[in-house]
This record gives sequence, C-alpha cells and structure tokens, in this order.
Amino acid sequence: MTLTLDQARSIIEHTRAKGREMALKPLSVVVLDAGGHVLAFEREDGAAPGRFAIAHGKAYGAVMLGMAGTAQMARAEQQAYFMAAVNGVYGGQVIPVPGGVLLRSEAGAVIGAVGVTGDTSDNDAEAAMAGIRATGLSGEA
Amino acid sequence: MTLTLDQARSIIEHTRAKGREMALKPLSVVVLDAGGHVLAFEREDGAAPGRFAIAHGKAYGAVMLGMAGTAQMARAEQQAYFMAAVNGVYGGQVIPVPGGVLLRSEAGAVIGAVGVTGDTSDNDAEAAMAGIRATGLSGEA
Amino acid sequence: MTLTLDQARSIIEHTRAKGREMALKPLSVVVLDAGGHVLAFEREDGAAPGRFAIAHGKAYGAVMLGMAGTAQMARAEQQAYFMAAVNGVYGGQVIPVPGGVLLRSEAGAVIGAVGVTGDTSDNDAEAAMAGIRATGLSGEA
Amino acid sequence: MTLTLDQARSIIEHTRAKGREMALKPLSVVVLDAGGHVLAFEREDGAAPGRFAIAHGKAYGAVMLGMAGTAQMARAEQQAYFMAAVNGVYGGQVIPVPGGVLLRSEAGAVIGAVGVTGDTSDNDAEAAMAGIRATGLSGEA
Repeated sequence: MTLTLDQARSIIEHTRAKGREMALKPLSVVVLDAGGHVLAFEREDGAAPGRFAIAHGKAYGAVMLGMAGTAQMARAEQQAYFMAAVNGVYGGQVIPVPGGVLLRSEAGAVIGAVGVTGDTSDNDAEAAMAGIRATGLSGEA
Repeated sequence: MTLTLDQARSIIEHTRAKGREMALKPLSVVVLDAGGHVLAFEREDGAAPGRFAIAHGKAYGAVMLGMAGTAQMARAEQQAYFMAAVNGVYGGQVIPVPGGVLLRSEAGAVIGAVGVTGDTSDNDAEAAMAGIRATGLSGEA
Repeated sequence: MTLTLDQARSIIEHTRAKGREMALKPLSVVVLDAGGHVLAFEREDGAAPGRFAIAHGKAYGAVMLGMAGTAQMARAEQQAYFMAAVNGVYGGQVIPVPGGVLLRSEAGAVIGAVGVTGDTSDNDAEAAMAGIRATGLSGEA
Repeated sequence: MTLTLDQARSIIEHTRAKGREMALKPLSVVVLDAGGHVLAFEREDGAAPGRFAIAHGKAYGAVMLGMAGTAQMARAEQQAYFMAAVNGVYGGQVIPVPGGVLLRSEAGAVIGAVGVTGDTSDNDAEAAMAGIRATGLSGEA
C-alpha cells in the first residue's frame, strides 16, 4: 500500500482541525512516504520560520528507524549517546520526541510518518493521531 | 506584506491545476516565505521521491539571491564557477534553472518564491506563473 | 513590520554603549531579520576572533524556534538530547543560552533577533535588552 | 597592524556612501580581519536575505588565499577545477569574483579583506575601494 498525496493532504487538514479544536499554538505538519521522503507540508501562520526542520526531524526518525517518537524519546532518555549516534549516521536529521507518528497499513507495514510541531510534544502527537484516524489510517505515536 | 499559508495553498492548488490542464508529468510544488523557509509543499502521485529537494532548490536560490530561475540559469551559463561557488555558501541548496519563481508584493518587494519541478523547466515555470496569477500575486520567472 | 538596517545599527550602538556603561568585556552583537538572516554585526576590539558564530548562534536559534535564549536554556537543561537534535536539523548553528533575544512588533510578531556574546550570558542579555529598548522596540530575553 | 572595529565601520560607511553616489542597488558589506573572521557587516534595506554569505565568500577567499577577487576570477576562468578544489578545502566558503578586496598595511601585509555584493561585481569592487581609501587604508581589488 502506497500513501497518496490525497491521504497526506487529508492527514494535514484534520491534524490542523484538531489543533484548532484543542486551541493549540500554530502547527506545522509534514507527511513522509515509506522511504522518508516529503509528500506534503503546511506551516500555519504565526509559527516560527524553522518549523519545517523540526516537523521533518520527528517524522524522519520515525520512518528511518521504524520507531515512533514516544519510543525514540524513551530510548534517548535511557541511552542518550545511542540516539546521538543515530543522528550521526542520519546526518543530524532526527528529532527523537513525540509528534513523530508512524503510519501503518492494515497489514502492519510502515507506509510513512507524520511529523507535527508547534505545541507541547504530547499535544503535537495527539493532533497527529486525530488527523490519521480521520483519514482512515492507523498511527503509532 | 507577509505571505500567508492560505495564499501558499492557493498557489499550489492552481499550479497543479495548470499542470493537469497542460497534461504535464506529476509536479512537485513548494512555496517559501521571504526568508527562504518552507510554508507549504505537495508532491503529486507518481513523482520521483527526491522531488522536494529539487523544488526547494529552485525556490531557495531565487529568494536568497533575489534572482529568479531564468536569470540564475543565464548567469550559470555565462559564469558556471560563480553559481557553483554560490551553491557552496548556501550549502549546495540552489538549483539555478527555470521553475524557481519570485513572488513580489505590489510595491515590488520579494515576499517569497515558488519552486516547481516534474516536467521541463519551462513548463514548470509556466505552471508556477499560472498558480501565482490565480492567487492574485505577481511572479517573476 | 520589517526590521530596517537603521534599527539594527541603533540596537548595536546602544547595546555596545550599555556594555561600556556596565564595564563588560568586549562585546560582539548581531541583528538578524525575521527569516534568521544577518542584517548587521559588530565585534569590539579585543574580542576573540570566533565571536561572530557565537552571537549568530544565540540569535539564530531564537528566530528559528521562536524561543528566546532563556527558554532555550531551560529546555536544554530539562532535555539535553532535544536541543542537541534541534542543532542537528539546524546545521549545528544554535547556541541555546541567554544573550539570544527575540525582537517583537507591537502586535507581538517576531521581527528578528539580537545575539550578544562576550561577557556572562546574563550580562550579554541585559545589554541586548537595553539596546532594544533604546531603539523603541520590544525584546524577549 | 591590526584592523580595528572603528576602521571596519568607516570602510562600511564610506563603501555604502559610494554606492549611493553611484546609484547602485542595495549593497551588503562585510569586513574580515587578518584571520578571515568577521569584524563588521551591514546589509542595506532591499537587499536579498542571502547577501551575507555572498559578501563573506568574496572577502573570505581573498584573505585565505591572499589573492583579491579579480585575481581569483582570472584563475577560475583559466582553471575552474582549481578554484572548485580550493572551495573544497575551505568548506565551500569562497566566491571568486571581484568585490573581494584585500586590505594591506603600509608595509604590504594583508590585514583583512572587504566583501561587497549587490550590484555588478565591478561596481561592488569600485565601491569597496572607495570605502577603503576614505578610511586611509590600501586596497587591492
């Protein structure tokens, strides 16, 4: 199963809608495909200019490691040097905190990831999960 | 004048519509703000996975140099080592060909740039210009 | 609202004047625009040669994250691996300590940042705030 | 002889004044010390955001090679791969065109360099030379 642009746009639309419903700060939302490559991105007005890189870093680490942001954070807290080394091999592109959410097919395969940044990491992840569910897909935060 | 996300989304929507009207190959379209930072991006189904970086490189060079893709290409053809050196100082992020289009305010200030990739450079630029005009903004290809 | 070079020069002049009034070590002061790009910089005689990068790093992180140096330092102390990862995605250009001060418009939007280095981080920030106030702008340290 | 910040500021002031006298496009002017490190910089309103890196690249190559921009351009035109290789060892930071001007002491030692960008390379260099002469120093374009 290959993630489509229409699905990516739906995830972004519904993640942003959840953010507004929760009254979060302006969100930035990226969707990556199964190869870790950008499909779609939107940065809400008022977000800081560097938010693409943070959203991307959350989603990129999730896809490349097959490990969602919550699990990455746990690993970083147990073994900080391991996640630092991971960032070495991935060119410093990984942000190991919640808000990086894996997208899974019905069969369980990773088909991409969503990265959300702007509010607390936990709120970012909650908005992403809402956007994924509203699109009829399964997420792992 | 600050470019908004709604304007960026409109540019992408109408650039893609023009691409379909012209029967172009799948397009990837990025919109950057006046500081060269990503506001929005979409990659159409069937486009190669690395298209974000190409679209970004066209738009990024335009904003950072204040010079659209057509002018960058002319300079690269006259003085290849200069554009190579420019890419050095900008971390290799510049793609100096048409398809990188400056967005200007009514007063003439650069307020961002659009980068389109997927078909020929000239067709990419034509689609971008259509998307910009449909959004009520001025472009310089 | 766009920060002008005259405002940037005024911030530097008054930050330096405050430094002399407080009898601080030689200061280096940078002013970045809302996109994180350098508008003006001065390094006082006697400062170490590498001070541009430190001043820049304080201001750059502030703009890109929309978070001033004091808040960045708090986050770095709570979650060191997060700020290390942020530095990865920003190319190692962030110095997360006081002395990186956000510039805000009357409406509250970030219009740039000031980075000061040379004395203690707290003194650097105090001098920056004085320079910003003397220029009639609002700062957040 | 060590270049002072007051001298650097004078060079920038008079280079900008010459630019206005010649009715050039908005200029960006950097002054580096004998070690290739930034002393002072100003970017005029209306200049593209990425101009710091271009100005810096012109001056940096001049100091690091002890060769002004005109001589670097001649070498690049004769032997493009050599200047490309130079950029490899200097981390891609060299822009080998006029507008990078060496500053020399009375005894002939290199004490720094000026980098100017914004108009044609030749006009950039002419403005820099005027700023250097007005400061009572010797330049080599």
